[in-house]
Amino acid sequence: MGATNRQVVLARRPEGPVTADCFEVRDGAAPELTEGKALLRTRYVSIDPAIRGWISPRGSGYLPPVGIGEPVRSNGVGVVVESANPDLPVGAVVTALTGWQELSLVGSDWAEPFTVGTIAPDGATALDALTTLGQSGMTAYAGMHAVLRPQPGETVVVSSAASSVGSMAGQIARLAGARVVGIAGTPAKCAWVVDELGFDACIDYRTEDVADRLKELCPGGVQVFFDNVGGELLDTVLRRIAPGARILLCGSLSTDDGDEAYRLRNYPRLMSRRASMVGFNTIDHWDLYPEATAQLARWIASGEVRTRTEVVDGLDAAPELLVRLFSGDHLGKLVARVDPDAP
Amino acid sequence: MGATNRQVVLARRPEGPVTADCFEVRDGAAPELTEGKALLRTRYVSIDPAIRGWISPRGSGYLPPVGIGEPVRSNGVGVVVESANPDLPVGAVVTALTGWQELSLVGSDWAEPFTVGTIAPDGATALDALTTLGQSGMTAYAGMHAVLRPQPGETVVVSSAASSVGSMAGQIARLAGARVVGIAGTPAKCAWVVDELGFDACIDYRTEDVADRLKELCPGGVQVFFDNVGGELLDTVLRRIAPGARILLCGSLSTDDGDEAYRLRNYPRLMSRRASMVGFNTIDHWDLYPEATAQLARWIASGEVRTRTEVVDGLDAAPELLVRLFSGDHLGKLVARVDPDAP
Repeated sequence: MGATNRQVVLARRPEGPVTADCFEVRDGAAPELTEGKALLRTRYVSIDPAIRGWISPRGSGYLPPVGIGEPVRSNGVGVVVESANPDLPVGAVVTALTGWQELSLVGSDWAEPFTVGTIAPDGATALDALTTLGQSGMTAYAGMHAVLRPQPGETVVVSSAASSVGSMAGQIARLAGARVVGIAGTPAKCAWVVDELGFDACIDYRTEDVADRLKELCPGGVQVFFDNVGGELLDTVLRRIAPGARILLCGSLSTDDGDEAYRLRNYPRLMSRRASMVGFNTIDHWDLYPEATAQLARWIASGEVRTRTEVVDGLDAAPELLVRLFSGDHLGKLVARVDPDAP
Repeated sequence: MGATNRQVVLARRPEGPVTADCFEVRDGAAPELTEGKALLRTRYVSIDPAIRGWISPRGSGYLPPVGIGEPVRSNGVGVVVESANPDLPVGAVVTALTGWQELSLVGSDWAEPFTVGTIAPDGATALDALTTLGQSGMTAYAGMHAVLRPQPGETVVVSSAASSVGSMAGQIARLAGARVVGIAGTPAKCAWVVDELGFDACIDYRTEDVADRLKELCPGGVQVFFDNVGGELLDTVLRRIAPGARILLCGSLSTDDGDEAYRLRNYPRLMSRRASMVGFNTIDHWDLYPEATAQLARWIASGEVRTRTEVVDGLDAAPELLVRLFSGDHLGKLVARVDPDAP
């Protein structure tokens, strides 16, 4: 192993939509192994909306902002190349907040949950462990299956339906017997979630009136809403909630990318409809990881849940992928291949 | 019984704060007893914030608006004077949505929950059945004890702390071992809830900076919020919520009285703090009525919960009392005595 550690660092904070010139590639020093840690060589990093929050001045509320000159925080998967932790042996495939860099240190102490490395489930590839069986799968499974728990016949709406999390969340609701209506931003996305993933319908929010379409498609009101977007779209769905509706706030794509914070008009519907709105973070549900990965692996193997991952070569590609994430032309998950030898 | 039925009807809808000239007194016809119903002679009606929603153009979301020329919808308590329902015998003291009128019909069919009359608990006066053991007590008990469930040592904030519901909700939290911080609108109200009711502190929102005071009084953040106000005050408390906070939306006094609808800025805190915000209506918890009334009666008898009710004579006084409710100079519950012979 060389002494260098190629990194993509935050050069300046974006004002408004993120641009590639907010980042710089540099060769940093390889981290020194310390007691209880393992040194991970990154194979892939995933390009997630959460990154936009982490590089904002305020951070994400549960993690501090990435500092200028620091590697960009990111989920990733790698292989342990040196270890001072028996739980993370050399050769193990491990997911962690690797950051946008070739080498990182991970541990196994849950008192520091954001440095914990998790060994990939048996039989899963590194890419699966990062995506469908990793953060995205866990988020969809925990949010939909463990918190919202849609019942047969209920009407479930999922925003950002063609995203990695949204597409899996909708399919999990379908498997629970619910009617599932997606909201997405292009005809191709809508076609994918309906034709390939089995959603009952999908609203194109760029060309259709979401409130009108929700009224048509959900005549009894929206009973469950898995929200990855927030802002004005959340406000529109609030106008259409059924009595007792459950809303999960999983993400806020609409404002993640630097938009002026939207101010919510229809929150009094929560009271008149006796509905609930719950903030969600996968970190609170990590005890479900074994159950979730086993169930997701079964669904994916049987074809009951379908997923899509687009892999782009090179750590240096990560900034442009983050820009693309918000420009909205991809289906499923975006991943950068950091190790050119990764399978 | 005479053939007339004195009523206070809605003459015009308020635009902005409610004024007494929105109402008119008239002599209506006594309702005719029908199968399954009982005829109730009203003793008292309670003056509640919900009335403001019911006379607005949209109603309350769970009940349609009161029509022009119709008696104002209101909680009340009366005595059965004629009955075609064996569950509601002549002489029974019954709470119901009597409206602002001397005579009304009530039933016992829970398929029509808003016409159901509930017999007063054993040993309770008509006034108790309307107030501390009625809607207000049930709301405070169900919301705080059954939904929010504060734990010993948790920090609980109650808005409209000197109101009938707020004052009882805060005391129930105190009895659960929580630290209780009230928010109210005058020094007299703050003094009452701290000195008489045992709240740990109370913020006067008219003269103090609520955000600063919450920071001082709740250094670990607000863990539980029983909100009777909504709007800007809710937004301010959202800035100070602790991870995992539970917020109950029980009322929206701030906008009930015709203010422009406030637009909520800090709802993304629900996500970053993994907090929940739940709309609440007592009607969903009526199964707790026997438990709640028994427990509240014990607490009131022992002095562990203190209450205050101001009774003003005459149905005709109801409009002015509703105006006073929003002008903010009363402690506890406001009630109009409809039957001059009521004890």
